[in-house]
Amino acid sequence: MFAIAPPVSQQVRLQVRRGEHLAPTANLAPGYVQANLAILPETLAADFLLFCLRNPRACPLIGVADVGSPYIKTLGQDLDLRSDLPRYRVWRDGELHEEPSDIHHLWRDDLVSFAIGCSFSFEEALLADGIDIRHISSGCNVPMYRSNIQTSPAGPFSGPMVVSMRPMKAADAIRAIQITSRFPGVHGAPVHLGDARQIGINNLDSPDYGDPVELRTGEIPVFWACGVTPQAVIAASRPAFCITHAPGHMLVTDILSAHQSVF
Amino acid sequence: MFAIAPPVSQQVRLQVRRGEHLAPTANLAPGYVQANLAILPETLAADFLLFCLRNPRACPLIGVADVGSPYIKTLGQDLDLRSDLPRYRVWRDGELHEEPSDIHHLWRDDLVSFAIGCSFSFEEALLADGIDIRHISSGCNVPMYRSNIQTSPAGPFSGPMVVSMRPMKAADAIRAIQITSRFPGVHGAPVHLGDARQIGINNLDSPDYGDPVELRTGEIPVFWACGVTPQAVIAASRPAFCITHAPGHMLVTDILSAHQSVF
Repeated sequence: MFAIAPPVSQQVRLQVRRGEHLAPTANLAPGYVQANLAILPETLAADFLLFCLRNPRACPLIGVADVGSPYIKTLGQDLDLRSDLPRYRVWRDGELHEEPSDIHHLWRDDLVSFAIGCSFSFEEALLADGIDIRHISSGCNVPMYRSNIQTSPAGPFSGPMVVSMRPMKAADAIRAIQITSRFPGVHGAPVHLGDARQIGINNLDSPDYGDPVELRTGEIPVFWACGVTPQAVIAASRPAFCITHAPGHMLVTDILSAHQSVF
Repeated sequence: MFAIAPPVSQQVRLQVRRGEHLAPTANLAPGYVQANLAILPETLAADFLLFCLRNPRACPLIGVADVGSPYIKTLGQDLDLRSDLPRYRVWRDGELHEEPSDIHHLWRDDLVSFAIGCSFSFEEALLADGIDIRHISSGCNVPMYRSNIQTSPAGPFSGPMVVSMRPMKAADAIRAIQITSRFPGVHGAPVHLGDARQIGINNLDSPDYGDPVELRTGEIPVFWACGVTPQAVIAASRPAFCITHAPGHMLVTDILSAHQSVF
């Protein structure tokens, strides 16, 4: 399904594994897909898998490990989910417990790991098209909001879709829709544009996650389903135990972003 | 380049040719591409061809006849441009001179005929996707406006792009961008959406051509380049002689609309 390309991405993972890189992964290994990570006990795995399949815009699965396995070889032959992210978040009963840079000591035979596409890949394609991505040119995080768009529930997993917002001129928004439609594995086309109140967002200056960005005269806000959705949904279900990536500290895979494009 | 399919479209043309159908062609031969027609003297043909090539959104060429020929066999084996449109407009020195239903008596050996894609094809695809096309559900003509978007001039041909407008909810607008992107031969993706003043349109209730349609709460206007553009540009250049289709009275071709889709 995915072409495996050689090493910039692998070099990054090795650095991270040796503890030489603890910072966010933005701009590392450009051209390679980065992924959100969710690790759950087997008892919750089937429901979470169903949740992802029912909500492909917010939770585009790009890899699932076998039960108990810390490997997803389709994303990288040598990849080790216990050490290859710069920072993790460990949740107990829905509360953030610790933020380690390695989770070997927490590994269990019943854990199932999910890699979920993130928007870095399509942002590269937008930048390559000459479109300004405001949070990148402003050097901050993308603004994210809890919308009133409901996800399709599965077992204990339910809740609103979290959306990311990028302000654009209309002509750029039209191009961005064309471009991101080609990347269904990394959220795909926008879910909304224009009036934010139509999806339950009353104040663009106060994002629920990330940083506010400037909406300039003549620009409209364009909203994409966001990979924070599964994390918010998991937290709301208050599982006894789970592990996710820390925000911005993603799994760097060997998949070329260009190979995620469907045409 | 185009697959030639059999006859509903041919039957329509034969009816028109025999003078049995003098009305607009909307809803005739659904599934088949209909075209705008422009017939110019050879002295203007090269410049007009260049104008079309420089403005593919507004003037998507789907066929050009040889000099003096009333046939474009790629659009229909038996097709005769002198008789197969229900109504024509004859222009002299830029003024509308007559509106005949046959132009055999006006034919000249120096005439060059251009068939230009029209939005009927992509509207069928939008309707098939469940999107409401307001002017169709309201039973009127699509509203069209002279925008402040300038065309790229060629020889005597220049002027503003005429755009058609369809009001939609944001989610439908996103789908419509995806769908119409697949039809570059019939205007393709929108050229603008949202604030009409950004493209020089101050009052949506007063279109320059066609009829006004209702913009409902929560809807945004979506604008496509319109096939009226070449007609407006030709009129503004005031050629000594030219012939076009009468509005709504299109050339019905044997090309399946589905075959105009690029993926």
